[in-house]
Amino acid sequence: MRTRIIGGLVIPVTQSGLWYENGHVVVEDGRIVAVGPGEGPTVPGEAVVNAAGKYVLPGFVNAHGHAAMALLRGFADDLPLMDWLQKKVWPIEDRLTGEDIYWGTMLALLEMIEGGTTTFADMYFHMDRVAEAVAQAGVRGVLSRGIIGTSPDEGRGAIRESREFARRWHGAEGGRITVTLGPHAPYTCPPAVLRQVVEVSAELGVGIQIHLSETRSEVEQIVASHGKSPVDVCAEAGLFERPTLVAHAVHLTEADIDLMARFDVRVAHNPGSNLKLGSGVAPLPKLLQRGVVVGLGTDGAASNNNLDLLEEIRLAALIHKGVGEDPIAVDADTALALGTREGARALFLEEGAGTLAPGAPADLIFMDGSGPHLLPLYNPISQVVYAAKSGDVTDVMCDGRWLLRDRQHQTLDRDKILFHVGRIVEGFTR
Amino acid sequence: MRTRIIGGLVIPVTQSGLWYENGHVVVEDGRIVAVGPGEGPTVPGEAVVNAAGKYVLPGFVNAHGHAAMALLRGFADDLPLMDWLQKKVWPIEDRLTGEDIYWGTMLALLEMIEGGTTTFADMYFHMDRVAEAVAQAGVRGVLSRGIIGTSPDEGRGAIRESREFARRWHGAEGGRITVTLGPHAPYTCPPAVLRQVVEVSAELGVGIQIHLSETRSEVEQIVASHGKSPVDVCAEAGLFERPTLVAHAVHLTEADIDLMARFDVRVAHNPGSNLKLGSGVAPLPKLLQRGVVVGLGTDGAASNNNLDLLEEIRLAALIHKGVGEDPIAVDADTALALGTREGARALFLEEGAGTLAPGAPADLIFMDGSGPHLLPLYNPISQVVYAAKSGDVTDVMCDGRWLLRDRQHQTLDRDKILFHVGRIVEGFTR
Ligand SMILES: [Zn+2]
Ligand SMILES: [Zn+2]
Repeated sequence: MRTRIIGGLVIPVTQSGLWYENGHVVVEDGRIVAVGPGEGPTVPGEAVVNAAGKYVLPGFVNAHGHAAMALLRGFADDLPLMDWLQKKVWPIEDRLTGEDIYWGTMLALLEMIEGGTTTFADMYFHMDRVAEAVAQAGVRGVLSRGIIGTSPDEGRGAIRESREFARRWHGAEGGRITVTLGPHAPYTCPPAVLRQVVEVSAELGVGIQIHLSETRSEVEQIVASHGKSPVDVCAEAGLFERPTLVAHAVHLTEADIDLMARFDVRVAHNPGSNLKLGSGVAPLPKLLQRGVVVGLGTDGAASNNNLDLLEEIRLAALIHKGVGEDPIAVDADTALALGTREGARALFLEEGAGTLAPGAPADLIFMDGSGPHLLPLYNPISQVVYAAKSGDVTDVMCDGRWLLRDRQHQTLDRDKILFHVGRIVEGFTR
Repeated sequence: MRTRIIGGLVIPVTQSGLWYENGHVVVEDGRIVAVGPGEGPTVPGEAVVNAAGKYVLPGFVNAHGHAAMALLRGFADDLPLMDWLQKKVWPIEDRLTGEDIYWGTMLALLEMIEGGTTTFADMYFHMDRVAEAVAQAGVRGVLSRGIIGTSPDEGRGAIRESREFARRWHGAEGGRITVTLGPHAPYTCPPAVLRQVVEVSAELGVGIQIHLSETRSEVEQIVASHGKSPVDVCAEAGLFERPTLVAHAVHLTEADIDLMARFDVRVAHNPGSNLKLGSGVAPLPKLLQRGVVVGLGTDGAASNNNLDLLEEIRLAALIHKGVGEDPIAVDADTALALGTREGARALFLEEGAGTLAPGAPADLIFMDGSGPHLLPLYNPISQVVYAAKSGDVTDVMCDGRWLLRDRQHQTLDRDKILFHVGRIVEGFTR
């Protein structure tokens, strides 16, 4: 099956400032096989999809989150972080069953697909149910069983579960699902647990994702107890010898950044969550200058409160300009790349993922360009980053398969999912 | 004509934490006459509108902008501020005709109405054409002829035009249009011009809006040339004896804030524009603590790049938490009030404007609450502020008249406006 998409404004995100005002993208067997201006040389038997009036972009990559926390969206806001976690989030999380997490993940997937996200990273528990949801939805998932090692037993149990989960799901669904190990953070996983994670990561040939240096107080706590920064703690445990993605990286020293750059540690920048929880503003311009690969994440909906990757792209473009009083800090080209190509690199996906380039996985979206908020049109990259809304997304393809057409889900049953979410949430408040 | 809106989730924004899960709003002769839980006591002959599944809120108030600059949306981004203004914006603005400004304003009004804005402030030129657009669109406008007084002639001409404009339009369209005087900024209007503005303001009984302390360099320039802060310059010219709204107020000293609080100077906070242009982050929490009345503005689309007031509400709620590392800096209730009730106060509209309270002008919107990004629902105010999108707006009423029903414009001809915008913009690039 070969599909030729024509008539749209194509932004390949392969290089800065490149777009085809009227371009084509050809998809075959889950891969992009041609991209360029005009309709291109057609081949008999192709399906033709007209994208006139639409932007055609790579799907967004959400490099950090906890999808099932969509069940806790708005459950508790505007609280100090520890009250929020200890009094609100953790008591509910303790009660979540595999069934709850399955439907919570489905809710998140409905939203992410509607907003143009085709790949997401996830760190949570009952991960087999998350993987089932990903298999059904048709998106790409980079999944970790969260490992908390505050007691040796807990750590061992979670690592065992992670190993089993990786064996079942790593590379499943034709490669759409990748498994990584998910030690929660240096303040919840002592060095001994981190070292075990490194061993298992090498043994299974999978990467690692971890929360790192999100809040000032957590960094202070680690420095007080270990005499070094959380980044140093990870480095010494051998984490950075493995492919590692760190989420947040808000409070970093120059030495931390040096170390991360040297070891090619990848970063998931979560501007919305960092702002909302009062964690601070990550040194994104500095990380980019140092050549660190950075993607963007929403974090869980309980701390965001949506899973709108385009909003994170815009925040990444805006906040560093304002906070640094530098109007050229993170330009539109860079921000769009962070939400697509660089996110795929941060997740250690294959070369070309997150772009529209021949050979890349066919993960792409259409956005309606006809709204008054998108006119007039001078520069489509600037338009997408600074003016568009995720609601402009009309069509979503992942791995060559349509997940959304004309805003209608092709793989998920919206009503059924919302019914189950309603049922589950009723239980929380009882 | 009396209309009873029932079945919706009503957020009156009259006090923190108040909503009716299933409430009613009754509108008669352009006024809200009843608000409360359930359907309320019905009256024969009322029209009944079912808002089931929708949020019912006051319309958003955009307290600062330059609507016709929608023509320059994305025309030049990611440039240092002075390059952007001098090389890009001003040369095009010099060429704008009244006709251009009329259609540019219409484009902005299409977008603002679709995004739920019912009141906007505007400072630009060819303001008679702006007022005509406002009259036709049916929104509420607080309009100023921008006054630049770098030469005495220029200042005199703009003040004469402002006086004529106020005589023609102040209080027009049944009070939907208010005129204020619009000295551009202390760095473009010397004290003599500011003093003249104060005189004319008193003579005509109209308020004043001015850009103030937007960038660090502009403040430094004024301090160097006048030996005092821009706020002091305005105060000494007598501006604060009149009802005055200042836009931006990013770089303020403690003494500036004292003075502004003492004289009840109102502020339009423009978080998106301030971030994008690298101007900085205004001290919103401090202004609010001091009791200063603050509304939210988008500024012109050339520096935003959209006119999405809900986005400004979210930015106002988020950025001060992140930058101040304080998760309770500006809560959802406060942010929603800034975008509605407090915006109306900042614009010196009548008591009650920007809320759903009996006696208030009937300016209200519906937002679709059925999207997965708005579920589950624990706290509707948090949901609107942190999770909703302006694309969720389905219906807009201003002054008791429907401007948008089921996302369809009732007062504006979308195709015609977009046609003219296309024609005008083609001329720019020739
Ligand atoms: Zn997280
Ligand atoms: Zn302005």
